[in-house]
Amino acid sequence: MTLADQPPAAALLFQTLLAHGPLTRAEIGRRTGLSPGAVTKVATPLLTDGWISELGRSTERTQGRPATLMTVRGERARFVGVKITGDELIGALTDLTARPLATARAVLGSRDVGTVVLAVARLVDQLNAEAAPHAPGALHGIGVTISGDVDGHTGTVQYSPFLNWRRVPLAQLVQKATDLPTVIENDVRALTVAEQWFGVGVGLSSFALVTVGAGIGCGISIGGRVVSGAHGVSGEVGHLPVGGTDRVCTCGNTGCVEAVASTQAITEQARRATGDPTLTMDGAVRLAHTGNADVRAVFARAGHALGLALASVANLIGPERIIISGEGVATYDLYEDQIRTTFAARAFGAAADCDLVVRPLPFEEWARGGAAVAAQHVFAPAK
Amino acid sequence: MTLADQPPAAALLFQTLLAHGPLTRAEIGRRTGLSPGAVTKVATPLLTDGWISELGRSTERTQGRPATLMTVRGERARFVGVKITGDELIGALTDLTARPLATARAVLGSRDVGTVVLAVARLVDQLNAEAAPHAPGALHGIGVTISGDVDGHTGTVQYSPFLNWRRVPLAQLVQKATDLPTVIENDVRALTVAEQWFGVGVGLSSFALVTVGAGIGCGISIGGRVVSGAHGVSGEVGHLPVGGTDRVCTCGNTGCVEAVASTQAITEQARRATGDPTLTMDGAVRLAHTGNADVRAVFARAGHALGLALASVANLIGPERIIISGEGVATYDLYEDQIRTTFAARAFGAAADCDLVVRPLPFEEWARGGAAVAAQHVFAPAK
Ligand SMILES: [Zn+2]
Ligand SMILES: [Zn+2]
Repeated sequence: MTLADQPPAAALLFQTLLAHGPLTRAEIGRRTGLSPGAVTKVATPLLTDGWISELGRSTERTQGRPATLMTVRGERARFVGVKITGDELIGALTDLTARPLATARAVLGSRDVGTVVLAVARLVDQLNAEAAPHAPGALHGIGVTISGDVDGHTGTVQYSPFLNWRRVPLAQLVQKATDLPTVIENDVRALTVAEQWFGVGVGLSSFALVTVGAGIGCGISIGGRVVSGAHGVSGEVGHLPVGGTDRVCTCGNTGCVEAVASTQAITEQARRATGDPTLTMDGAVRLAHTGNADVRAVFARAGHALGLALASVANLIGPERIIISGEGVATYDLYEDQIRTTFAARAFGAAADCDLVVRPLPFEEWARGGAAVAAQHVFAPAK
Repeated sequence: MTLADQPPAAALLFQTLLAHGPLTRAEIGRRTGLSPGAVTKVATPLLTDGWISELGRSTERTQGRPATLMTVRGERARFVGVKITGDELIGALTDLTARPLATARAVLGSRDVGTVVLAVARLVDQLNAEAAPHAPGALHGIGVTISGDVDGHTGTVQYSPFLNWRRVPLAQLVQKATDLPTVIENDVRALTVAEQWFGVGVGLSSFALVTVGAGIGCGISIGGRVVSGAHGVSGEVGHLPVGGTDRVCTCGNTGCVEAVASTQAITEQARRATGDPTLTMDGAVRLAHTGNADVRAVFARAGHALGLALASVANLIGPERIIISGEGVATYDLYEDQIRTTFAARAFGAAADCDLVVRPLPFEEWARGGAAVAAQHVFAPAK
């Protein structure tokens, strides 16, 4: 069976099982709109080639007989997800269901494209060697994630501020270096895919994931699909114009959320508040924890800006839940009250019923999101 | 054939034809994910009962033979759409494809629920009598639209500020008064459905419709579906916290877009700027057109707030296009420059590629949106 030969309905059935399985044939029909006959027709080659299997019995009965459950066979294929940051690579090798089998990190000596691509290839090899005894079989594909404006369709990093990359054909370069099919995705969107699939976004009609740290990012999931934006941009909460500051943002404007609430912005404001130009973020956190009112005010201002950003997301999209994650979650106690107070005041009407959940997710989970994106592409049409 | 007996795939096929038809069977399969066999199985009772028909020949060939096009039979059913404002009703009687056959307006003597429901019933009768000679056949359903927090699933107006209604079971009341199946929807979302179906949203992967007038509303369409919000709230751009003003909004906060850019807000700011407490919106427009710098500044400030709102929508959703409509479009020349300048400065990266289109849409088009929503519900599962 050639994967590319499969009809679009095969990708639909497979992705439905990946995200929601195990399911009975009837449930698959309900979720995909495929007729019972079409489900059988599409499922047969996938069953034959071992991508999915039938297991056990559901309690649901079809015409008096217990219905069989279909599920994705995790062991059928392996993937590596890699998250690239400015300083290091974080990798996770997973099975077809994005279950992690091994993880590893590698420090980056340089942000030069060639160096990073080679380091990715080396990390993939290392993970594969580690995992091989426990999970025999060849690697099936790679999913690389990176912050910034990433065009998954063409495999190009249009712009990544932390690496200072512009128009880098990253998918193609990694594919050449590893000889494995490679897809790329914005890192926050990949983490949103992961949360939708096996995190606290499972089963929700819609949710947003807001990440707080070096940048302020956001992934939006509506109806089981992550919003990608017609021009590749979506979820840019960091640059929502909420005002309240004269500080100039990395984008050149004033009043952006990031200009008040990013790690860099908090550090700089704490330096000014204390008059100590060498103060670090860790130092600022310590001062705030010991009760320094000026530094606490810096965190409160960041919390207010984040609360306005979350309220904007709730007012526009009306998600069932907003998940708050990112490195900034480690200091969440310093601005949680302000976030929740501002959110409650500014979310419009029933939009305030949106559930705010704080969830620390290590970079290994972000890498796993890359593997999940790669697994979803197994039956996607060739580009 | 009982409509409720039809499988979910029937609604899918029918709605696909409504929105995108005429289509060949192969195109229907591609858009719905239904197999050729399933398309035939689902289409047969719809063809038999006259909801759809086969027409002409497409240039696309299937296995050497010219493919037949399937289309919705407009004459099969009629609908009335009604938009309720604080002062009047606007109605449109349409065929199944939302083609308008007659329109009418009725002034509201009172905002009392019973009075409005009776007026809706009378308007439906009047439209039906007018259209009957040209379009014989019974009315099939009604779609009522109204601004505010509208729960289409339960048929309840949760809150409508302009009418000061709370928890009104409007669908049920209109259904009782007319003896016709009735659905209700937020008016901006219904207009978004109309734009998606037969306006300048046709064929777009995503778009937003921002309406400027007594309130500032927004409908969001992603992947061919209008975003409804998990808690019934979505597209509340009027209450995005963009700052820049001390004026208190109707929602109790300061810094909302509506507090600067609604008709009421512009009028009040123009009164203060001129010192004339009797100035009307029309008067303010005249003063601005004759070059009054203070009043022009009021419009520029409104344009800036609207530009920030549009940039927020673009940064979060990344729509292909933003359509600007509503009564405020009549004075659009007074703030267009400022809207475009602010939008260009604040849209992040490629989000600025989003196309801004100004489109005056009379209330009859809004009413037609109500009829479109009713037509879409023909094969929807019973509630
Ligand atoms: Zn910015
Ligand atoms: Zn407000």
